Amino acid sequence: MDIIQIISDKRDGKALTKEQIHFFIKEYINKKIEDYQASSLLMAITINGMNSEETANLTEEMRVSGDVWDLSDIPGLKVDKHSTGGVGDKVSLILGPMIASCGAKLAKMSGRGLGHTGGTLDKMESIPGMKVNMTKEQFKKQVKEIGIAIIGQDEHIDPADKKLYALRDVTGTVQSIPLIASSIMSKKLASGADCILLDVKCGKGAFMKTYEDAKRLATEMVNIGKNLKKDVKAEITDMNQPLGKAVGNNLEIKEVIETLKGNGPKDLVEICLSSGAILLQQAKIFTDRAEARKALEENIKNGKAFEKFKEFVKAQGGDVEYIDHPEKFPVSKNLIEIKSENEGYIKTIDALTIGLGSCHLGGGRMKLTDVIDMSAGIYLNKKVGDFVKKGELLCTLHTNKDNVDSIVEQVKKAYIFQDGPLKAEDNFSHNLIE
Amino acid sequence: MDIIQIISDKRDGKALTKEQIHFFIKEYINKKIEDYQASSLLMAITINGMNSEETANLTEEMRVSGDVWDLSDIPGLKVDKHSTGGVGDKVSLILGPMIASCGAKLAKMSGRGLGHTGGTLDKMESIPGMKVNMTKEQFKKQVKEIGIAIIGQDEHIDPADKKLYALRDVTGTVQSIPLIASSIMSKKLASGADCILLDVKCGKGAFMKTYEDAKRLATEMVNIGKNLKKDVKAEITDMNQPLGKAVGNNLEIKEVIETLKGNGPKDLVEICLSSGAILLQQAKIFTDRAEARKALEENIKNGKAFEKFKEFVKAQGGDVEYIDHPEKFPVSKNLIEIKSENEGYIKTIDALTIGLGSCHLGGGRMKLTDVIDMSAGIYLNKKVGDFVKKGELLCTLHTNKDNVDSIVEQVKKAYIFQDGPLKAEDNFSHNLIE
Repeated sequence: MDIIQIISDKRDGKALTKEQIHFFIKEYINKKIEDYQASSLLMAITINGMNSEETANLTEEMRVSGDVWDLSDIPGLKVDKHSTGGVGDKVSLILGPMIASCGAKLAKMSGRGLGHTGGTLDKMESIPGMKVNMTKEQFKKQVKEIGIAIIGQDEHIDPADKKLYALRDVTGTVQSIPLIASSIMSKKLASGADCILLDVKCGKGAFMKTYEDAKRLATEMVNIGKNLKKDVKAEITDMNQPLGKAVGNNLEIKEVIETLKGNGPKDLVEICLSSGAILLQQAKIFTDRAEARKALEENIKNGKAFEKFKEFVKAQGGDVEYIDHPEKFPVSKNLIEIKSENEGYIKTIDALTIGLGSCHLGGGRMKLTDVIDMSAGIYLNKKVGDFVKKGELLCTLHTNKDNVDSIVEQVKKAYIFQDGPLKAEDNFSHNLIE
Repeated sequence: MDIIQIISDKRDGKALTKEQIHFFIKEYINKKIEDYQASSLLMAITINGMNSEETANLTEEMRVSGDVWDLSDIPGLKVDKHSTGGVGDKVSLILGPMIASCGAKLAKMSGRGLGHTGGTLDKMESIPGMKVNMTKEQFKKQVKEIGIAIIGQDEHIDPADKKLYALRDVTGTVQSIPLIASSIMSKKLASGADCILLDVKCGKGAFMKTYEDAKRLATEMVNIGKNLKKDVKAEITDMNQPLGKAVGNNLEIKEVIETLKGNGPKDLVEICLSSGAILLQQAKIFTDRAEARKALEENIKNGKAFEKFKEFVKAQGGDVEYIDHPEKFPVSKNLIEIKSENEGYIKTIDALTIGLGSCHLGGGRMKLTDVIDMSAGIYLNKKVGDFVKKGELLCTLHTNKDNVDSIVEQVKKAYIFQDGPLKAEDNFSHNLIE
């Protein structure tokens, strides 16, 4: 087999065979194929695409390129959940305890924030003491005992993805549905869960800007599951405005606590209930989705979900005092209130602008080595559809930085108003691909 | 400016600006752009193409990436000629002396053979003593004094092409019309001639297999000339069967001598007269092409073209004794005659098979470090259209190797016969793009 022939086949629009894909991943990991050959092939894939079988084969070769975790000695079906990333997306930290309180086992590896998107690991680390690294044995023990563990990506899992992702990042080959799908799915499949629910974010603050692209990605990932005989479902959910009201690490943890206590913002609660019900059904704890949803609502009301969250925080070394007394979380020295200069209904709150704003206030990182200010971020006092009067509070910027006038100006521009109330919008949150 | 944006633009099918192309070539030469980024861009160009303006801008940036030779102090218009390569293509060595004997100035840099294609430099070196390297000053002096010099590519000319070509060779990006066109034209334009005639070979033994591809390449190169205000013309000529009868280095030199003495095979004579007349017109020595052709025919008859060839050989250090007494050239120890097993008209003689056969007999190289046996090759006793009886001699293999049975079998398969005489075929040799 010959890499130049493989590249030429894809350049000419042919489908690659299982053997060709095996050869590419194996020899690339073994440094027999050079980066400049891999990037040429990645560009040919980016432009000419891959069919579902090729994408599944690529995913499978990447999956087995490193360690594969076996969770089969934990009783019951293990579930995993993945979001393609957005602004204010703290769903896993709410949904995880909710479903675990109903008997599900969430075994999840998560990521860091970059640019306008936040990361679950960073949010967790805003709770003093909370650890996001553990051994496979510790991870399995925790999932077995309390039904939930969320940790960072194990470094020995999926080395092919690490190498390919780093290369794609600098060669203009990030924007490829089959490459994105195989990157996500190979990691998820290698970390051992039986059922996977994907949350494909769609809109201004998401990686997928259009519904068509989001649907293509969701479908591709569900097809990978079908091809590799795994239970994979995907929801397409809205990311035009931030999710919930809090954007920024400890601001979001406080919203997680409020939501688990039954006081969450409507859009956030809805997605947690919706995704949670699907996961409980995937885990075969409920056959009926409506009943699963009822059980989740019940466990919010009776406090079991909140107790599970505390159990989870404690198990990973976090200081539960902060969960019981969220007022202990540090607050930024500068709280800048942005008040409405208009009267009307909020038509849009640009999630990308809010995400970047929070990042620049100190709440995120533009490169992976930047240090995050856990208290920084933006709290949205109003959401899309709300009616506001002139002078009413739109949002509050939290920062320890001074001279943030340009960020204030940017954030103001994120808001667009209209005179009358909003029509019933396209709501993606129940668009399930299965 | 940012290479990832440039790659992404071409990936998305956009035309690159002059500034983007300038940035790419400059920074790639300066090692600020990595090979894996360049190969990704090259693949995007290979798949999505480039328009004529982009191709001309790329050519210009490559042209000025190294030394640019100025031949303006040689009186008159300097001409150059380039063939895209084929089997038995010794045209430059006949045509050069022919036009120089009519007063033209041929200032040409040439290449080596690889795989099934021969190279002018190798053919020249089969004449004992002949040198293919000289300084710019020596080159200019020779062109000025005798009207013809043919040397190897100067190593300081067009470093961008060297780097890009080496990368394209291992990344599946050789087959791209704009990249081939800019590679050829940037070198030609940097070596200083005023007028360029391109011979785009088309058919089984050529790089361009179809007439459509050959026409696209020819048109692209002529358009580069138009964009950069240079007199560039291109002929599309047949390379389905080898050109002339001799394939292999000193075999071809003997055919050069015979042709310059007026005894050349019909197809070879025709292309020398046709291309020569165009070049004499480009050099403004004749305004009328038919008259130019007549002058060339005359200088074959009166021996001036042959004398000019001897002058050229002598000027570059070659032993003229061999030109006057071609029987002095070494002959391979094994001469294997292939006789016809059929009776009929020869429909095709596959140029690729003959070229590879000659190469494997010792007459060529599969990699650039292989050493060539100057006496090895294949002499075609019959050509396409000839009628042959069973047992009549088709061709003679010249080799110093033993055990060449498999090559003999391959060469036999190059011949296809038909019962009746051939119809007037499509003849590309006068398809001039200007």
